[in-house]
Amino acid sequence: MTNNISRRLFLGGAASALSVAAMGGASSVRAATAPPKAPLYGPAPGIAKLNANENPYGPSPKALKAIMQASQKGAYYVSDSVMKLKSMIAERHGLTPDHVVLGSGSSAGLTAAAIVAGHKGNILGPDLFWDTTAKVVEVQDIGTIKRLPKLESMAIDLKAMYSAIDDSVAMVQVTNPNNPTGMLIDPAAMREFCIKASKKATVLADEAYNELTDNGDANSVIPLVKDGHDIIVARTFSKIYGLAGMRVGYLIAQPERIAEMQRFGIGWYGLNQAGLAAAIASYEDHEFMDFSRNKVKEAREMVYAALKEHGLTALPSVTNFIFVDLGDLNAETFRQEMAKEKVLIRGIYRDYTNWSRVSMGYLEDVEQYTKALPKVLYRMS
Amino acid sequence: MTNNISRRLFLGGAASALSVAAMGGASSVRAATAPPKAPLYGPAPGIAKLNANENPYGPSPKALKAIMQASQKGAYYVSDSVMKLKSMIAERHGLTPDHVVLGSGSSAGLTAAAIVAGHKGNILGPDLFWDTTAKVVEVQDIGTIKRLPKLESMAIDLKAMYSAIDDSVAMVQVTNPNNPTGMLIDPAAMREFCIKASKKATVLADEAYNELTDNGDANSVIPLVKDGHDIIVARTFSKIYGLAGMRVGYLIAQPERIAEMQRFGIGWYGLNQAGLAAAIASYEDHEFMDFSRNKVKEAREMVYAALKEHGLTALPSVTNFIFVDLGDLNAETFRQEMAKEKVLIRGIYRDYTNWSRVSMGYLEDVEQYTKALPKVLYRMS
Repeated sequence: MTNNISRRLFLGGAASALSVAAMGGASSVRAATAPPKAPLYGPAPGIAKLNANENPYGPSPKALKAIMQASQKGAYYVSDSVMKLKSMIAERHGLTPDHVVLGSGSSAGLTAAAIVAGHKGNILGPDLFWDTTAKVVEVQDIGTIKRLPKLESMAIDLKAMYSAIDDSVAMVQVTNPNNPTGMLIDPAAMREFCIKASKKATVLADEAYNELTDNGDANSVIPLVKDGHDIIVARTFSKIYGLAGMRVGYLIAQPERIAEMQRFGIGWYGLNQAGLAAAIASYEDHEFMDFSRNKVKEAREMVYAALKEHGLTALPSVTNFIFVDLGDLNAETFRQEMAKEKVLIRGIYRDYTNWSRVSMGYLEDVEQYTKALPKVLYRMS
Repeated sequence: MTNNISRRLFLGGAASALSVAAMGGASSVRAATAPPKAPLYGPAPGIAKLNANENPYGPSPKALKAIMQASQKGAYYVSDSVMKLKSMIAERHGLTPDHVVLGSGSSAGLTAAAIVAGHKGNILGPDLFWDTTAKVVEVQDIGTIKRLPKLESMAIDLKAMYSAIDDSVAMVQVTNPNNPTGMLIDPAAMREFCIKASKKATVLADEAYNELTDNGDANSVIPLVKDGHDIIVARTFSKIYGLAGMRVGYLIAQPERIAEMQRFGIGWYGLNQAGLAAAIASYEDHEFMDFSRNKVKEAREMVYAALKEHGLTALPSVTNFIFVDLGDLNAETFRQEMAKEKVLIRGIYRDYTNWSRVSMGYLEDVEQYTKALPKVLYRMS
């Protein structure tokens, strides 16, 4: 087996692998042709996977091509590609590469930010936000998450947040658009909050869903980092770019904050060639982003229409998930009943027992949700 | 752009991507056909990259095929594939999946092990070992690495290591085969040491290069984990499997140790679909491992012969790197002179100013090293 032979073997294998994979494009095709056994990657045939905020239309063709090219060199540790992606990101925002750090998803960076904060004090957040990474301070017994009481409108009350920043608070975390509500904070109000709050504590703005909004740049606080404010912005390739399984995200912050977080494990060391290549190929792929944004909008309209038809309401989402008000129904029971219809969604968040999050998957899968909805509501009534 | 269209576009792109990549198999071909611009992934054309312990013959054909299949589902977070790989590893060693944790390379797990130890006490190691991850205790100011004085033979003195375990030591770390020496500890002596030492402190055996040795199973202390001893064994897909850039490694330990380390960031969350798929496809690919082991042996013989011809000696390596005694020459100057010949190797390790590490790359690249050797020695004499 020489190297050339192995490459040739690979080319043969590649073609058949791709043929098999290409069949799995639409769930209807999947259900008709694929064996019933659950696959190792992605959802099982016939299952509408709407329980994670993934974009199933990704990876884009450009990303897949880049993955294959880079994986040929998968024997080598990443190096130049790290600076390439950091430079692309920095350049777009008028920053330098030392304002940027890459990680395995934005969760790597968010976790490091939480640990750094935990060693100094507590983390302040609204009642509902994407707190999976912030919880590390409680897991490691180094701090606590202070949560503001839930609001009637479900919007984040920035005035209350600002007032709650006392000496015990090292970091304020805002997910914007928020998860699981899907709601966006008014950009001017968010900017004002960040400028004021960052004088009292580090502000962490988790903008994982920014690119799904209609005017992402206007909704971002990255320009405030350029202005020198103590704000950390988290972004990810897991959402609109459709690369959740490829694990690439990044933080933008003051260089001294980046250096501080790198002490706690974040950095390029965990990055993989395939993910980096996909991210580099996807970063400015506006054709794919527009395509995905439109698919998400179409899906949201389908869900809102179905909810309305059956007398339910939901929060106004600008993202690829919708937080549905089930009235007096229990969200965990609803999740279980939906699962019987092969529709996977989320159960209860904290004490929001009658709120249910559904993500926008393939349109066929969203249709499966809208068709299951009346059946499940009937069974639960 | 429908999903089916995007898949078809991808198939077209794939073929051309593969054609380009397939040309890069041997460095001589690369030098003749590739543009001089440095690629983002892997070494530049004409460069003999022998400064990291990578296996350039990877990823194997099976791994590349699996990467492409899994990357089609790169939009989804990993899930079942994590348990699949953990089960494969556990089954092979007669353990349960809760004895295994996966990470982005073994460095993720080694780092977590170091942090856990650092919160309890110090880390004890020989003078030279792969200490990149252990250093996290010093970076985070939570502990120190105690190093035993270097030995004349360059072998790890296990008796001295055992005697040095006092109350301040929380973990003893042994890289076996060791890096940068390439030397293996006698298996019976290593087992005896692990059993005794693990009664006084956690023993971390970093077996990154185990699969490169002639009888890997006999050289491993994984069976001691099955026997219930407090030993953590680190393994990786970065070395013989040729997947350094795909970032998959694992630890094998008692379930309570695994749980403890998971508090400090290690776990499946940073894993990527492509890397997991490659690891699953590679784990029992003995054809590729035998092929790689033989290439490494051939390369080692070429290096040893060249060294002997020019009056130099080196340590007896069982791995894919050799630690060369440069006599009265400086290893950093030697590295710089080799770089002028387009051969990349390592410089000085700690106070071993006249020792130089060279890794086994493509045979053509190793030949570039052996041809550059007399030129560089002449210039330095």
